[in-house]
Amino acid sequence: MNSIKIVANGAYLPKIKIDNEYFNKKFNLDEEWIYRRTGILCRYKTENESIIDLAINATKNMIKRYDVDISTVEAIIVATTSTQNFMPGISFYVQKYFNIQKCMCLDILGGCNGYINAFDIARNYIALGKIDNALIIGVETISNFLDENDLNTVILLGDGAGATLIKKTEKEKLYMSNICSDPTESEILKVESGKKLFMDGKKIYKFAITKTVENIKELLKERNESLENIKYIVPHQSNARILNKMASELQIDKEKMYSNLKEVGNTFCASIPIALTQMYDENLLKEDDKIILIGYGGGLNWGSILLEI
Amino acid sequence: MNSIKIVANGAYLPKIKIDNEYFNKKFNLDEEWIYRRTGILCRYKTENESIIDLAINATKNMIKRYDVDISTVEAIIVATTSTQNFMPGISFYVQKYFNIQKCMCLDILGGCNGYINAFDIARNYIALGKIDNALIIGVETISNFLDENDLNTVILLGDGAGATLIKKTEKEKLYMSNICSDPTESEILKVESGKKLFMDGKKIYKFAITKTVENIKELLKERNESLENIKYIVPHQSNARILNKMASELQIDKEKMYSNLKEVGNTFCASIPIALTQMYDENLLKEDDKIILIGYGGGLNWGSILLEI
Repeated sequence: MNSIKIVANGAYLPKIKIDNEYFNKKFNLDEEWIYRRTGILCRYKTENESIIDLAINATKNMIKRYDVDISTVEAIIVATTSTQNFMPGISFYVQKYFNIQKCMCLDILGGCNGYINAFDIARNYIALGKIDNALIIGVETISNFLDENDLNTVILLGDGAGATLIKKTEKEKLYMSNICSDPTESEILKVESGKKLFMDGKKIYKFAITKTVENIKELLKERNESLENIKYIVPHQSNARILNKMASELQIDKEKMYSNLKEVGNTFCASIPIALTQMYDENLLKEDDKIILIGYGGGLNWGSILLEI
Repeated sequence: MNSIKIVANGAYLPKIKIDNEYFNKKFNLDEEWIYRRTGILCRYKTENESIIDLAINATKNMIKRYDVDISTVEAIIVATTSTQNFMPGISFYVQKYFNIQKCMCLDILGGCNGYINAFDIARNYIALGKIDNALIIGVETISNFLDENDLNTVILLGDGAGATLIKKTEKEKLYMSNICSDPTESEILKVESGKKLFMDGKKIYKFAITKTVENIKELLKERNESLENIKYIVPHQSNARILNKMASELQIDKEKMYSNLKEVGNTFCASIPIALTQMYDENLLKEDDKIILIGYGGGLNWGSILLEI
């Protein structure tokens, strides 16, 4: 079975930046209220850019940062919850823009956990020797689904895109995944065509903590691996309260639970690859570090990947 | 690497049946015109049923026909091009309806080839030993996207759903896949949120013939397998002209190219699993028969699977 490694990362945030000040005025809030409640200082919003533009721009930034050639990419898998493009999917437009010749394209709707699903699917193709590399993109223009007057969601959610290029490597590297769905409370987080997004924050909080902590523990137990040996947990950036509580439940330092929520907000499927991009930019990761990616969200759907990078 | 086998199939067509007569009157057509042009006598349309209902009903019919227990299904992968449910996806509602406890859900947008993508992804998980079984569903309510006055599309397209249950088998069985995308002509078949479907039939015809024939030949060559040993080709049911031309280009009997177009029309992602269900119902297939599934459509995206059933 082939091993994989992450070889490049890129992110893109649209031009319009919305600071807390905007919402403080709109909703007549105390200056610190949003930050205390969410850990977020700003989020981004598309105006004249499509979800396809965001996916392409994240990939462009990846190419710029890492000087990689993506003309030979063999699979493009895009995860989203806010697409307009049912056929062709976003992945096909990425293939077209970069003039990639022989490639398999696919868009995935897996809730906010979609990037984990996409990563795992791409890795399976490489593990089985069907392809040698894959481009995985998480992208959202969730602002199109927001009710501007719904304080609970507008202060949290933002648009953005992140791209990750993975490749087969001859060196044997650890890779494990643990993905699961439970739709019992499917109604607590919904994005439907032509409707406004609905989110029951309290129920999401409870679900997110319970399931992710359980999931990470299962993953580590299966491998007989200790959290001490994990350099970082890279969680879906939902809100600071969830991440802090996850860290305390796992009995790890807050610092080990990477977060860029402050500057980006919650970008659903884009949040993990945007975070990864920042971590590489900040030189937080080096070859063979063990990290855990953990996604969770509407569906409900959640999943983790333990990998040596 | 684990082998897989198909263990159950089910299909569902909504209650409203639209005969050619309806269109003959509406568009003032000769009685035989539609059939000569498409090979289709009728297609189905949802009225008070959602895309989720269709997926659930196909699965119910599968359970009825095969008396299978799906409470232990470990993955549900749904392929569609006409969803309303971005988060949770259709697969999650199927999990919920059948009260499946531990399962991974995922919806896929891969054009009309989506069922092939979904099948291949599910098989990879089984091949790698991550799961033992998976439910694959192709489902469409494409009627929601049709312009009632667009003769080129309304006579072809219909709603429906098909479900396939695959399982790990100890017996070694042949499985190969060959999936590819080329978005150069991405504009010739489009489904976008809030817009009417667009299809350039002439260009689709040319693409479908060229790419599918090439793709099947590549697949057979890789395996050094002859078409003589293939019991059936089960193609995406686009229209009779395409299927007949594919058969003639491959130099095989028309009978070997299975078609149920006459009674069902083109149901995009649902067409292959609906066809498979009928083939099993008609006792056309027996254990260890080799068949080729071939999908193709908007993206453009196409792919084949050669398998011993």
